[in-house]
Amino acid sequence: MLEPPLQSRARLQSIVWKGNTLRLLDQRRLPFVTEYVTCDTSDAVAKAIENMVVRGAPAIGVAAAFGMVLAAQRDENLVEKAAMLKAARPTAVNLMWAVDKMQQTPMSDWEPTALALYNADVAVNQAIGQQAQQLIPDQATVMHHCNTGSLATVDYGTALGAIRIAHEQGKQIHAILDETRPRLQGARLSAYECQAFGIPHTVIVDGAAPWVMKTRRVDLCIVGCDRVAANGDVANKIGTYALALAAKAHNIPFYVACPLSTLDLDTPNGEAINIEERSAQEITHIQAQPVCPEGTPVYNPAFDITPAELVTAIITEQGIISPPYLDNLKAFV
Amino acid sequence: MLEPPLQSRARLQSIVWKGNTLRLLDQRRLPFVTEYVTCDTSDAVAKAIENMVVRGAPAIGVAAAFGMVLAAQRDENLVEKAAMLKAARPTAVNLMWAVDKMQQTPMSDWEPTALALYNADVAVNQAIGQQAQQLIPDQATVMHHCNTGSLATVDYGTALGAIRIAHEQGKQIHAILDETRPRLQGARLSAYECQAFGIPHTVIVDGAAPWVMKTRRVDLCIVGCDRVAANGDVANKIGTYALALAAKAHNIPFYVACPLSTLDLDTPNGEAINIEERSAQEITHIQAQPVCPEGTPVYNPAFDITPAELVTAIITEQGIISPPYLDNLKAFV
Repeated sequence: MLEPPLQSRARLQSIVWKGNTLRLLDQRRLPFVTEYVTCDTSDAVAKAIENMVVRGAPAIGVAAAFGMVLAAQRDENLVEKAAMLKAARPTAVNLMWAVDKMQQTPMSDWEPTALALYNADVAVNQAIGQQAQQLIPDQATVMHHCNTGSLATVDYGTALGAIRIAHEQGKQIHAILDETRPRLQGARLSAYECQAFGIPHTVIVDGAAPWVMKTRRVDLCIVGCDRVAANGDVANKIGTYALALAAKAHNIPFYVACPLSTLDLDTPNGEAINIEERSAQEITHIQAQPVCPEGTPVYNPAFDITPAELVTAIITEQGIISPPYLDNLKAFV
Repeated sequence: MLEPPLQSRARLQSIVWKGNTLRLLDQRRLPFVTEYVTCDTSDAVAKAIENMVVRGAPAIGVAAAFGMVLAAQRDENLVEKAAMLKAARPTAVNLMWAVDKMQQTPMSDWEPTALALYNADVAVNQAIGQQAQQLIPDQATVMHHCNTGSLATVDYGTALGAIRIAHEQGKQIHAILDETRPRLQGARLSAYECQAFGIPHTVIVDGAAPWVMKTRRVDLCIVGCDRVAANGDVANKIGTYALALAAKAHNIPFYVACPLSTLDLDTPNGEAINIEERSAQEITHIQAQPVCPEGTPVYNPAFDITPAELVTAIITEQGIISPPYLDNLKAFV
């Protein structure tokens, strides 16, 4: 049932706009089934975001923008649909940012605006990846969490995009991929992208990351991000905080790669960020198979907050932001 | 396909000796299938240890002792079979300890010696659990890794046994159970035991542990152990080091519970402990279903070393050992 590996440098198209429908690559089933979900309405887009057919902060922002285009085309209540799309997932600020961008634009321009956001994301990703190169030495072993590649964005990706560009530049890169429970985006999606693009990689369980840092060479960690607060606190996939603590204990630089649209200076700090809690089934079942006794109580926060003091730098398309973040973030927004 | 919950205080018999066969509860299939594997030979016992039909440092020690009885009953080459059993898993010293105990005993006494080790384990576990009570306050929330309960021992368990005794004493205990990838002993086995014994519990993914420590009340961590080196370095299930680092960062006490047979003063420190590396399939597949693209490279160390400076105390059947371990461990062996 495995799909054949993609050609090197093939495009993994997470989002395809068809003029009056949005096609989303179903990331819940990758890498075992390559199938698109077709969304005809803004409701369908919101549901696809909520169910994680499409995921990754930049990708869900762009998907929501097209959701607004669909709402306009179908003459729906746009205030209501904007609120619905923004509420589909609470943590990633890119979702709110993209819907706000649409609402600030005359409705006649919504389709070109959404397409511009789509195209801008590719360029922004490339710029983030280029900026990151000054922090990624040749022969680096780079530890990575979740999936932040082509699948999490329109194309290329943020943290994984930076790793990919390093590889394309001929640096002898090795990526250590946390599998990233509960949804295994590292094992399923980042491994798939690395395989597709020929990037040497090794998957580990999340709990092994500190031991790998201690006993093998890890030169840096690089992760994506769902929201950066004004003080530099970072919301990202659950397990990021664990990785940042371990990086600190081993004196390994810990970098966050994200577009400027992920910076949210209206949120003072991590405590003010709404952390989405997802269903028990994500933990109690894997691919519909139970892995816990029936009725097992679980706690499943989808994100955590990494405090600013554990973040060595934030890599954006406009440059690298260093501490103190409270001052330095302002210069970039 | 789920088994009905056990009666509270029911006995989970991981090891059953039948006089000339050893029956081992197949822990690979719990909690979904309750099935015993019958071992007629020492080879079958070694294979069951290696394949993790039986697991947990104390349990594999006792199983190996019965493996020696089977070897003697079948008039096999005992030196060879002792070496085979000791090599079945390299990290837990209890395995070597139990086989050595047998070899130091006249062969005519082997069956009673193995039975004595079996019975002693239950008493030792109870004593560890009693010793631990001075460190477990009423209403404590206790974080736990892997499975260290009845299934990891002959009965009761070490760390989870301490939690169980606290619960039985009427303390309002809540156990936070790391699921413990890759083999999910926390999700499958510790949750099963807590459910069986009525201990309030919550399963989390391993990567969420530091975030739970930061945002919810966690009073202490308690884990089991496969080997304690002379300097107090502790080998235990992969992910233990991650948990200990996080506990340190949040000023949460980190306790290790184990029988004295787990202390190995012949091993100077953690670097001298052989860390077993297990098959890729443990990470790439869950219950025979692939979760990675085919051919994904993985690194799968089964254990890690938690340095002595992260261990608040070691709880044994004879008492609680505090730092400095290099001096204080000697007094207990």
